[in-house]
Amino acid sequence: MLVVFGSVALDTIRTPTSTLYEVLGGAATFSSIAASFFSKTGIIGVVGKDFPNLYEGILNRYVDTKGLNKKEGKTFRYDGKYDRTLSTRKTLKTELNVIRDFSPDVPESYKKSEFVYLANNDPDQNIKMLKSFDNVKLSMCDTIEYWISTKKASVIKMIKNSNIVTMNDEEARLLTKEYNLIKCAKKIIEFGSEYVIIKKGEHGSVLFHEDIIFPLAGFPIEDIRDPTGAGDCLGGAMMGYLANENDIDIKTIKKGLIYGNVLGSFVVEGYGVEKLLTLQKIKIDDRIKKYAAMTQEL
Amino acid sequence: MLVVFGSVALDTIRTPTSTLYEVLGGAATFSSIAASFFSKTGIIGVVGKDFPNLYEGILNRYVDTKGLNKKEGKTFRYDGKYDRTLSTRKTLKTELNVIRDFSPDVPESYKKSEFVYLANNDPDQNIKMLKSFDNVKLSMCDTIEYWISTKKASVIKMIKNSNIVTMNDEEARLLTKEYNLIKCAKKIIEFGSEYVIIKKGEHGSVLFHEDIIFPLAGFPIEDIRDPTGAGDCLGGAMMGYLANENDIDIKTIKKGLIYGNVLGSFVVEGYGVEKLLTLQKIKIDDRIKKYAAMTQEL
Repeated sequence: MLVVFGSVALDTIRTPTSTLYEVLGGAATFSSIAASFFSKTGIIGVVGKDFPNLYEGILNRYVDTKGLNKKEGKTFRYDGKYDRTLSTRKTLKTELNVIRDFSPDVPESYKKSEFVYLANNDPDQNIKMLKSFDNVKLSMCDTIEYWISTKKASVIKMIKNSNIVTMNDEEARLLTKEYNLIKCAKKIIEFGSEYVIIKKGEHGSVLFHEDIIFPLAGFPIEDIRDPTGAGDCLGGAMMGYLANENDIDIKTIKKGLIYGNVLGSFVVEGYGVEKLLTLQKIKIDDRIKKYAAMTQEL
Repeated sequence: MLVVFGSVALDTIRTPTSTLYEVLGGAATFSSIAASFFSKTGIIGVVGKDFPNLYEGILNRYVDTKGLNKKEGKTFRYDGKYDRTLSTRKTLKTELNVIRDFSPDVPESYKKSEFVYLANNDPDQNIKMLKSFDNVKLSMCDTIEYWISTKKASVIKMIKNSNIVTMNDEEARLLTKEYNLIKCAKKIIEFGSEYVIIKKGEHGSVLFHEDIIFPLAGFPIEDIRDPTGAGDCLGGAMMGYLANENDIDIKTIKKGLIYGNVLGSFVVEGYGVEKLLTLQKIKIDDRIKKYAAMTQEL
């Protein structure tokens, strides 16, 4: 089993082609649904009393929601607008609501889980969360500009406490004050991470581990509708794959990243989570084969 | 034999770590030297009487310079400055000098050449140049923003007249008025190109042909000193490889692009052409193996 800890949100997403108001979103939502194609996945998070039954039903269809708390107050809300190229997003509004001061409990049935994914959260909460598990075999954490800017020491401590850290290129640069991604990764490894995954959006991702560099070209997508959640799907799918394989050798980790890359390529083809909700395992396997043929058949 | 037509220049390159004054540069210089590691390569271009003997000697060491004209006047000069990240370059000065109104002759011994690389040049000159060859098996052309902005119809005609066209992502967007690179490539294929290679700098390159998409992650380089000439080396090395193989099936073309990618990764490690001048075939083959291991060994 994989446990995912992170935000469940009501997202307002403004893209050049469409605006979605208060749709199901959040890092834990995207990553746990992506993970669920590979492994039994439990979610830990919090929503408000206003969280629509429809969305709760969707989550229940894919993941174990025993760890999803419902509290007095409003659900976390995010409002962001993409530019014409869909390559940069401007945050218009963030309302923490019930997420503020949330002190999560880990359900007993989750505590034996060996795979834990700390989707983007307060790094101090993440460090605390990790300690709730009895027997972690592999943990992965994500972070964003907000935490790097406001709690850098905690971010570094969180990185030291988990096996894999993932973030995008700009975040890696902000954290390390280096520009070159190899230099960024080396610094992050010095912080105490075993594996560093730097996400580069449409350009793919790169895994760093000891002296290994594993660069993955992005799976080319012609019609990108909404990039929201692509990075979360990468982390979630990768961890779901690894939890299912129950193996953490470098070969399996590389394969996991390929699955993560491919899951990310699906989600951008629809708005919000919509593409995930019609996705089938057979389509994932097809795209994995297509990606291998594309990049490796010489 | 491969023939390369393009500029030979005296470059002033300002990088954050070093400034080089009037060093050997130009698209034909980078691409023909890169090609020379694979194939006999002839160059067609023009320099002024001020072109240093030292630089002429360097070119002679690598390529056949029968097609290199020396004219009254000054050599083409370029002056550009990179930003801190080495990802964007601002042109400070361009002096065409002897390149203006240059009407190249093709040496008799070049005319039977089946492989022709039209490094970035006036597209009308390129179209005329192609007609000088009796028996072209494969031609490749490059272009830049300047020609797309000033001679778009001629650029499209040049693309129709050659087999492969290469340009960087921003140039492809400018030419096609599309943002997504698959959409860009589809339009360029509609213009009449058989193969389109879109270069993405450190993120690698993508080849498009019919319904084939072949994305290549960049070879990761930790110490980038000067990106000048990387794209030219990609095109030149690829064409040199293909000329040597004397084969143009898709498998060979893909392999050629991998060689091009790797040659581009070498040149950025030094200033100007300096890295090319100490490069050996064995180092290229080593890096090709390293790249395969990096991306394909699962």
